[in-house]
Amino acid sequence: MKHLLYPGSFDPIHWGHLDVIRRAADLCDRLTVAVAINHSKKSLFSVEERVDFISQLTADISGVQVLGFEGLLVDLFREQKANAVVRGLRAVSDFEYEFQMALMNRSLEDSLETVFLVPSQERIFLSSRIVKEVARLGGDITSHVPPLIQEALREKLGS
Amino acid sequence: MKHLLYPGSFDPIHWGHLDVIRRAADLCDRLTVAVAINHSKKSLFSVEERVDFISQLTADISGVQVLGFEGLLVDLFREQKANAVVRGLRAVSDFEYEFQMALMNRSLEDSLETVFLVPSQERIFLSSRIVKEVARLGGDITSHVPPLIQEALREKLGS
Amino acid sequence: MKHLLYPGSFDPIHWGHLDVIRRAADLCDRLTVAVAINHSKKSLFSVEERVDFISQLTADISGVQVLGFEGLLVDLFREQKANAVVRGLRAVSDFEYEFQMALMNRSLEDSLETVFLVPSQERIFLSSRIVKEVARLGGDITSHVPPLIQEALREKLGS
Amino acid sequence: MKHLLYPGSFDPIHWGHLDVIRRAADLCDRLTVAVAINHSKKSLFSVEERVDFISQLTADISGVQVLGFEGLLVDLFREQKANAVVRGLRAVSDFEYEFQMALMNRSLEDSLETVFLVPSQERIFLSSRIVKEVARLGGDITSHVPPLIQEALREKLGS
Amino acid sequence: MKHLLYPGSFDPIHWGHLDVIRRAADLCDRLTVAVAINHSKKSLFSVEERVDFISQLTADISGVQVLGFEGLLVDLFREQKANAVVRGLRAVSDFEYEFQMALMNRSLEDSLETVFLVPSQERIFLSSRIVKEVARLGGDITSHVPPLIQEALREKLGS
Amino acid sequence: MKHLLYPGSFDPIHWGHLDVIRRAADLCDRLTVAVAINHSKKSLFSVEERVDFISQLTADISGVQVLGFEGLLVDLFREQKANAVVRGLRAVSDFEYEFQMALMNRSLEDSLETVFLVPSQERIFLSSRIVKEVARLGGDITSHVPPLIQEALREKLGS
Repeated sequence: MKHLLYPGSFDPIHWGHLDVIRRAADLCDRLTVAVAINHSKKSLFSVEERVDFISQLTADISGVQVLGFEGLLVDLFREQKANAVVRGLRAVSDFEYEFQMALMNRSLEDSLETVFLVPSQERIFLSSRIVKEVARLGGDITSHVPPLIQEALREKLGS
Repeated sequence: MKHLLYPGSFDPIHWGHLDVIRRAADLCDRLTVAVAINHSKKSLFSVEERVDFISQLTADISGVQVLGFEGLLVDLFREQKANAVVRGLRAVSDFEYEFQMALMNRSLEDSLETVFLVPSQERIFLSSRIVKEVARLGGDITSHVPPLIQEALREKLGS
Repeated sequence: MKHLLYPGSFDPIHWGHLDVIRRAADLCDRLTVAVAINHSKKSLFSVEERVDFISQLTADISGVQVLGFEGLLVDLFREQKANAVVRGLRAVSDFEYEFQMALMNRSLEDSLETVFLVPSQERIFLSSRIVKEVARLGGDITSHVPPLIQEALREKLGS
Repeated sequence: MKHLLYPGSFDPIHWGHLDVIRRAADLCDRLTVAVAINHSKKSLFSVEERVDFISQLTADISGVQVLGFEGLLVDLFREQKANAVVRGLRAVSDFEYEFQMALMNRSLEDSLETVFLVPSQERIFLSSRIVKEVARLGGDITSHVPPLIQEALREKLGS
Repeated sequence: MKHLLYPGSFDPIHWGHLDVIRRAADLCDRLTVAVAINHSKKSLFSVEERVDFISQLTADISGVQVLGFEGLLVDLFREQKANAVVRGLRAVSDFEYEFQMALMNRSLEDSLETVFLVPSQERIFLSSRIVKEVARLGGDITSHVPPLIQEALREKLGS
Repeated sequence: MKHLLYPGSFDPIHWGHLDVIRRAADLCDRLTVAVAINHSKKSLFSVEERVDFISQLTADISGVQVLGFEGLLVDLFREQKANAVVRGLRAVSDFEYEFQMALMNRSLEDSLETVFLVPSQERIFLSSRIVKEVARLGGDITSHVPPLIQEALREKLGS
């Protein structure tokens, strides 16, 4: 796999995502992290902020580029001439949705293969939603996100 | 089973629904497709549009009637003197919710039996929500909905 | 649905099975309960015993016939000219296997439709295997099987 | 376990919750039912109403106190010097989320142990959301909530 | 909870079990670890060996006793005058079976409550079966079982 | 990914496996299909037969080698200097087991990454076990296995 595409909301990125990025980067020559702009779902951080966070946090991993994207993943996939899409596999409910998306994407573009990686065990139940919930209530999220994100959440949520 | 009732949102109807309709129609003398009016969840198509689509798409299947309904399924069930409710069974998360609804409906009316059918394999992961998401972003949904719905989505979403 | 086929091991029949039989019988004119002879899996009761138990326990339900069968369900389905196969839907792991069987059977005979019924809530987690385990250890299974089966288990297991 | 903490929305409390309260109270000297104030998710009943309902409905169970709380469960846990958190375990989708919360809470406070109880079988698929849905449409929820809650739902929903 | 009962096969005990034992012991005054003798399923270690291993490995935890038992859990529960049964909750398939057992045990003895604990995150997918498989093939299981068990597996399997 | 390792029993290989082989071969320069010799589980076909079948059926796919192996996957992985292990992801119960294996393998060799691929939709519920069951009873498995395997099953099972 020369070029892998890792799409997501990353609102914000947490250690589970970074773990998948490292594993995926090890398996390919080039990894594109694609931050989705979703107009219908309000995000906490702007796409520029999210791209910037990931860029800083992956600066030491060679072959990683980060960009924002709008529209269909399949269009980005074609435009980027990627070889496959990568996703982290977490809990069961997640699995169902990921399956559904992988099959829909394949129906849109037959060559779009989705490969799933298993994050490190202590990240399997982590999600951006739960990180935000806890941060909003003033909880300590030190072990779930990098210091950069912790700081950004503190500022954004005034917590 | 003389008379089956197939309730749902059908917003919009896709090939998975039509597959279940054909299978259910084969098992009974009369099939009522009941389009739910849900005031709390905004639908993309009005109930009139949805009823109209299904009527056109099932015109060639004998014994099928389509109607809109508001309120409790159990009231429609009694009013229509149906013998059972039919539902398509898809992925796992779905299964949990369907189970819950079947048991709640039985608690409201002891004779309300829910029978589950398995849609054709290539439709098992299909949902109206994912069809709308893809259509909204300009994706090609030719293989998931009939041309009539494809056209209607294009007009509605201006995509 | 004129004629439903309810296949299973029924080794032995418990209240969950009987609940499904009653519900299924209500939905059709004729219900055939088909006791599978499985040479590779040793059963506790012989097929004759199992057929006999079910016959006695369903004697009061009109339209029910009980028989043993060997080989493919699809062959029995054709021979019996049944309209559909009925199965009780229980817990999640079960659901996976049932799905798999329903799809395999459809691949063998396109017209073989499987309809799933939800057993009464207090039977959802019941299985013949667990009933036998408890009976073997001398536990009281009064609430899970009819007296006839309780007696038969006591004799068979000498418990 | 001297002191158990049972947190939840209880919007409104139903027989499944009350079943868990009784089981939990039997296992400890003191049970604190903690009604969560969630500013981001609109509740049907105010926290005062919910606390009041539960207080009335648990008046006959010794050792139960009811209170409203805002913020992190872990802070309440420390403040109350509780020994463990108790949760009712229902269907599968639920299980995933509960697992996630239990692990997040443990990451926030190493000594916060979550113990799960299985509600009585006929309550396993019950949820406040489905109770409200049915009540809103005028359905009979007699078998799912105590008369006090039934009355309150009728007044609140004008149904 | 004064007295908790933790039943299982423990063939052999691994870090996931020991984690549950420590958590359970923290929640009660007295914890009985009950090693099941199962005549129908061949175990790798004898019940005496298994009891001995657990006794050694829990010698430093106060209030823990270990014993072998045969027959129904419910009989041991009554005999031991335990307050509840404790089980570790792992993956999803497991959850189904545990639910089934908890409900069956409650049907045998109304006061038998099962409380579930979540093991430490890095043990959630661990099982005795997989430990034995890996040990049998000569794999390094250092991180999954204590040295005592590692040694015992080496001797038993000659690996 | 230069070199992928695809381990399994392949007893016998079916269209779902072949689908995964094609997808995996597209993603790497070299794919090793590794047929497991499992002394404790009796296989229908010998490892030589299974290797031979797969070799014939993948003769037209460049970069594929097939071999039998005994012992730990991790040893083969090191010996073959593979970059990752590939597995097809099917139904839910499967997912649990695959997760467990992927984590155990990683614990044995930190660099052993498992990547999961989604088979073509009509193969998602297919398994060797169900193919054998149906073939044993004389069922038509034309749509699930290649003619070569169909023939071999017929000879082996005399059906």
